[in-house]
Amino acid sequence: MGVAVDNPVALETAAEAGRAAGRPIGVLVEFDSGNKRTGVVSVDQALALARRAAETDGLRFDGLMTYPSTAATAEFVADAKRRFAEAGLAIPVVSGGGTPNAWHAHEIAGLTEVRVGTYIYQDRATVAAGAASLDECALHLHATVVSRPTEERAVIDAGTKSLTSDQVPPSAGPGYGLILEYPDAVIERLNEEHGMLDLSRCDRKPEIGERVRIVPNHVCVVSNLHDEVVISRAGGVVDSWRVAARGKTR
Amino acid sequence: MGVAVDNPVALETAAEAGRAAGRPIGVLVEFDSGNKRTGVVSVDQALALARRAAETDGLRFDGLMTYPSTAATAEFVADAKRRFAEAGLAIPVVSGGGTPNAWHAHEIAGLTEVRVGTYIYQDRATVAAGAASLDECALHLHATVVSRPTEERAVIDAGTKSLTSDQVPPSAGPGYGLILEYPDAVIERLNEEHGMLDLSRCDRKPEIGERVRIVPNHVCVVSNLHDEVVISRAGGVVDSWRVAARGKTR
Repeated sequence: MGVAVDNPVALETAAEAGRAAGRPIGVLVEFDSGNKRTGVVSVDQALALARRAAETDGLRFDGLMTYPSTAATAEFVADAKRRFAEAGLAIPVVSGGGTPNAWHAHEIAGLTEVRVGTYIYQDRATVAAGAASLDECALHLHATVVSRPTEERAVIDAGTKSLTSDQVPPSAGPGYGLILEYPDAVIERLNEEHGMLDLSRCDRKPEIGERVRIVPNHVCVVSNLHDEVVISRAGGVVDSWRVAARGKTR
Repeated sequence: MGVAVDNPVALETAAEAGRAAGRPIGVLVEFDSGNKRTGVVSVDQALALARRAAETDGLRFDGLMTYPSTAATAEFVADAKRRFAEAGLAIPVVSGGGTPNAWHAHEIAGLTEVRVGTYIYQDRATVAAGAASLDECALHLHATVVSRPTEERAVIDAGTKSLTSDQVPPSAGPGYGLILEYPDAVIERLNEEHGMLDLSRCDRKPEIGERVRIVPNHVCVVSNLHDEVVISRAGGVVDSWRVAARGKTR
């Protein structure tokens, strides 16, 4: 069992849980690799927390972690290794992360682990980042064309409650997802329940009632919106899985 | 029981259901008031669908509907009333919608009904639109400060899986929601599980472990992310309600 912490308050909370459970909790000290989210910003801070973890009853110091792993990661880790060694502290684990750069993880010196999320399904953003091909995108949202108000517009029954408002860099293409059957259709606007498609660049146009498959811009948040995923293999449905972590954000 | 339709395919699907159930389904013909989503775009189309609904076994023509209701709505309805009367068809219901303009619904000639959604809770967007005051916003997302990596940055345990990526017009203020205890803090970035706060404009700054209440930018999608809402009155918790429609987008 392990947790990542970047401050003494979280460290003490974990220690209390470890003592209550009667077994130590492994601690990875999180550091910032430039994304300016969570994570300590200096090796001094990392060392102070690591020392405290190593000395606190209920905790075990396991190493360092960061997200994503980049060139800045390697620099931080090299400096930390030197400083921690001087302090007599080993760093068993250095955990990096991120799907877009997962294939380059071996180029970052010092990593012992790579954590990936989007990798499981891949999506339009990781395709744009060069980390996957379109046919490696394993999750498709199925939607139905429910309206064709004009020659140039179709409306599907998938909006922000199915696809989210998450966007992709312009290099990934326009709109809120890629429709596999109509790649020239642009999902140009969403309301909560509907997606508005611009068909002006399409030779063929979908009819009302037609089912289409969408590769989402960002599959992590899409997965969180659905209670089940239907599993298919070679075009046939073979199972249905519950999304166990859906909505479990805390 | 009633449904809104804007095309003959949906009309026939509803008719089959009405015949199967042995009782007619009321039909509102949806028209476009300028939002370019669903809805027929001419009175001719509306009349053709209404006639067909009135003549189809399993259906009952109940009237017209649109979203949102605007000046264009009044024009369409006036024209439709004249044309439908000539065709011998009454329009019992004219249903308009939209929270931001709900207080002006009486100014739109012809409406018999107003459908509102955001109105139930209100949110930062409807406050910006002048439809509510901040203390009328009934849904607050509670989040905890989990990290303070620098003097100017706090991180809360609410990201796109709790608040969504939905934004508001610049006039509503910056960021992904308003923190009631720290209105000068800007929720400037979100990842899936975390929100990054810029504290540079704050006199007081939150500590790790502190709970804050957030008025979401767009409450409709936030409601869809949570299984339960905790009901409080005068500062005390009085109940907990299940969000029955969460995830039921089709």
